[in-house]
Amino acid sequence: MYNKGIEPTELFKHLKTGDIEALARAITLIESGRPSDRIASNELLNLSMPFQADAFVVGITGVPGVGKSTFINGYGMRAIEKGYKVAVLAIDPSSKRSKGSIMGDKTRMDDLSVHPNAFIRPSPTSGKLGGISRRTREAALLCAAAGFDRILIESVGVGQNELLIDDLSDLTLLLLLAGAGDELQGIKRGIMEAADVLAINKADSGNDVTSQRAAMQLRNALSLLPTRESGLRAKVFTCSARDNSGINEIFDHVESMFAELLNNGTINKKRVVRNVRWMKQRVEDAVLDQLRNDERIRDFIQSKESELNAGSNTPIAAADEILRLMGIDPETLS
Amino acid sequence: MYNKGIEPTELFKHLKTGDIEALARAITLIESGRPSDRIASNELLNLSMPFQADAFVVGITGVPGVGKSTFINGYGMRAIEKGYKVAVLAIDPSSKRSKGSIMGDKTRMDDLSVHPNAFIRPSPTSGKLGGISRRTREAALLCAAAGFDRILIESVGVGQNELLIDDLSDLTLLLLLAGAGDELQGIKRGIMEAADVLAINKADSGNDVTSQRAAMQLRNALSLLPTRESGLRAKVFTCSARDNSGINEIFDHVESMFAELLNNGTINKKRVVRNVRWMKQRVEDAVLDQLRNDERIRDFIQSKESELNAGSNTPIAAADEILRLMGIDPETLS
Repeated sequence: MYNKGIEPTELFKHLKTGDIEALARAITLIESGRPSDRIASNELLNLSMPFQADAFVVGITGVPGVGKSTFINGYGMRAIEKGYKVAVLAIDPSSKRSKGSIMGDKTRMDDLSVHPNAFIRPSPTSGKLGGISRRTREAALLCAAAGFDRILIESVGVGQNELLIDDLSDLTLLLLLAGAGDELQGIKRGIMEAADVLAINKADSGNDVTSQRAAMQLRNALSLLPTRESGLRAKVFTCSARDNSGINEIFDHVESMFAELLNNGTINKKRVVRNVRWMKQRVEDAVLDQLRNDERIRDFIQSKESELNAGSNTPIAAADEILRLMGIDPETLS
Repeated sequence: MYNKGIEPTELFKHLKTGDIEALARAITLIESGRPSDRIASNELLNLSMPFQADAFVVGITGVPGVGKSTFINGYGMRAIEKGYKVAVLAIDPSSKRSKGSIMGDKTRMDDLSVHPNAFIRPSPTSGKLGGISRRTREAALLCAAAGFDRILIESVGVGQNELLIDDLSDLTLLLLLAGAGDELQGIKRGIMEAADVLAINKADSGNDVTSQRAAMQLRNALSLLPTRESGLRAKVFTCSARDNSGINEIFDHVESMFAELLNNGTINKKRVVRNVRWMKQRVEDAVLDQLRNDERIRDFIQSKESELNAGSNTPIAAADEILRLMGIDPETLS
């Protein structure tokens, strides 16, 4: 329908009507990474900027096996029931070699994946953390412009990914399992600090007592943390994504939290910080791209690679030689 | 003992004798990030390079709660029993705000933490993935120069961290739990591809059957993967770190695998690739540092931040303006 050479303004016009095909194509364009697509891609993003504030972005994270996709299915359906349009963007850094995709998880989003008011899109893995977050950020903006006003960013894993999702979302929801091992203690503080809402999933029949006890422990632990910048405390829920119980309550709480944070200005502040970081990331990416594309530097780096290969140079000394070629005095650096 | 102004050659002399205090101080020096420490730091690293090949680096990863620290205690003690000196470096990206440290885990390394032939050191969190891996890489080199010939790099989490640990280690060992949820399926391929040895931990009494079944399933799944570059297949074990059972077998297998990969040249090839990446990372870090330190650019970025704050510019357009100021034509970039 949209031929290769379509103008960004034309594509944007279609996207703005909520046309899912146009949205998918727009995301593919910004993900392309081809220099020839950069101008069109930037124009699309600039056209979409005024609609950034129309969407509320929730980051949903948790270790593998915690039931994220099933949870998102229930959570997204509740949002649709409330009259919202839902986009799910998945960050999937799982496989470097086979370019693993999260598409398999679509089968766990049975209801959502066939609903006309939902849009599900995995992010391709580049093996480069910054790259993933930049593209997810930009895809979210396009979704907002296409009228998807509830955007769920799903992220696998713990640790570094959480920092990332915190940087992409208005609010962060952490899914946990009860009794997942006592070493959880060790990372609890970091997790708790990053999450606005915590939900203990798989609180199914038989697992009730354990889940309630874990929730209580979490609440106690949270009460020891300093109040968050927003003035709101993180809240702990239990739910069963499988049985679709407890999810509506979580959705409603997240929504009321969002309304409050929008009201007291926290969300806006967070969004500005995010935009500043986005701008800087684009600059840094571009500087590194240029470095990689400069033929003279590339050739010199290649010769240094040969020296490392032959064992006749060290990475430390070779890096300094490359920097000098680029006109940077390594002794002035930290 | 070593006063502030010590010469790197002098510090290296102490470090070379296996002096743990000198090693700790050397690591602090390379982690400092102060421009004034850069020359001394580089000299230390260059002096250490010839000893890089003396140490065998094993990456140990797995989700929180899998029992990494207890496992490392048993694994490290086996290495010491076999006559090696063991260094444990921990990558801990858990907490952004409270600068969480893995030091608490030292208590799970009871035997190792008090043994004269062991050295345990957490990596500080910078919130920046590249920074963590660079410093861990450099700390490992210093450990090698200090005579620690078995280096264990512990990394929390799944996903992106695994790619990272794969880039830091000669071999990677993945700890798993049986029955940690069926969603594990989704990331199994990526995990399996990154790991050289897989161990199902907590195969304690009562958990035996589940663990054996999980091991069997894993073996079946692994047999479907293409042969690895090294020509060796990943192997699956069960163990109980708590009961210290099964760990010696894993250690012995990892050692024999290492000997074989050393013999067929795989380890050397991997190390050269790693050194090339290390060199490039140092160059990229330096380029970005310079960008951050240039006053004119910094001021201009600040003015763009104000525009974003006021809503009078977009991150995309502002980034392009910054690039133009730096003499980079954004339209030539990808």
